[in-house]
Amino acid sequence: MASQELIRKLEKTIENIPDFPIPGIQFKDISPIFLDSKLYEEVIADLAAASRGKVDAVCGIESRGYLFGIAIAVALEVPFILIRKAGKLPPPVISEKYDLEYGSAVIETREGQIKAGQKVLIHDDLLATGGTTEAAARLVEKQGATVAQFSFLIALTGLKGEEKLKKFNAEVYHILEY
Amino acid sequence: MASQELIRKLEKTIENIPDFPIPGIQFKDISPIFLDSKLYEEVIADLAAASRGKVDAVCGIESRGYLFGIAIAVALEVPFILIRKAGKLPPPVISEKYDLEYGSAVIETREGQIKAGQKVLIHDDLLATGGTTEAAARLVEKQGATVAQFSFLIALTGLKGEEKLKKFNAEVYHILEY
Repeated sequence: MASQELIRKLEKTIENIPDFPIPGIQFKDISPIFLDSKLYEEVIADLAAASRGKVDAVCGIESRGYLFGIAIAVALEVPFILIRKAGKLPPPVISEKYDLEYGSAVIETREGQIKAGQKVLIHDDLLATGGTTEAAARLVEKQGATVAQFSFLIALTGLKGEEKLKKFNAEVYHILEY
Repeated sequence: MASQELIRKLEKTIENIPDFPIPGIQFKDISPIFLDSKLYEEVIADLAAASRGKVDAVCGIESRGYLFGIAIAVALEVPFILIRKAGKLPPPVISEKYDLEYGSAVIETREGQIKAGQKVLIHDDLLATGGTTEAAARLVEKQGATVAQFSFLIALTGLKGEEKLKKFNAEVYHILEY
């Protein structure tokens, strides 16, 4: 559990932008966190503490999932595996398709980087509807590993992403919710 | 200057993939570095040492530029500014257009995150033709800041990216070259 002090600092730092990217959506801009290296380190300490002893690999979802994900993995001294959009990683890759509002998308990891039997943390900056995160979890399971935990800086609880992740029987951790 | 030992370790870790993404190109896959948190920390120590005392902000280019860039900024205790592809950062943004082989692309930072007078490090994982890096440097100068240094994990010297960056009168640092 993040301290109330950290939560308050983050709430003051994250910017709310109304009607972006489309009317009716309140965008949470986390980029000001990276301007303050001490605050960033506090976030990493909290996210790493939430996963310590529970996972032996971290998967980060491109691209904002890299900003915290790599530092969590380094803090835990475990491998960090890039989950990328289709076509960016060279072959051989393992892929997983998922539906978007219009059309579909594919995410990939390089073959062999996730090991069978690993307990994996899937990390992203934000949990919204959970579509990408669910696909990432299927990608992990496809490789014989287990999703032990999901972590996010922010969960948008109104979009019910956590319900979509229930089937994986993994802990869901987030620092902030809106 | 990176140690010969670090260079040798990286050369063994980075994977060469022939004919990706198109025939004739030798792709350098850096993703295995992130599987080894100790090696990653050695890379960060080297990149941070190369910039220490020379810069007061770090700009990282989406998305692989985030993987080392954020940790360099944290090691130097300076702000990290995201350079993103067009349409991903909420308004107000500062934009810069650049030419691709076919068509053009736009990169952006949020307005106000780069301060006039700052000495900026522009970091990316790889220097190829230098088109994106050059646009990033123009984006920095547009905001009244100076590009003090460019750093890369890898420079592909045959593509002459360094020549394109000469006009900025900034140091260009890289660990590996091919």
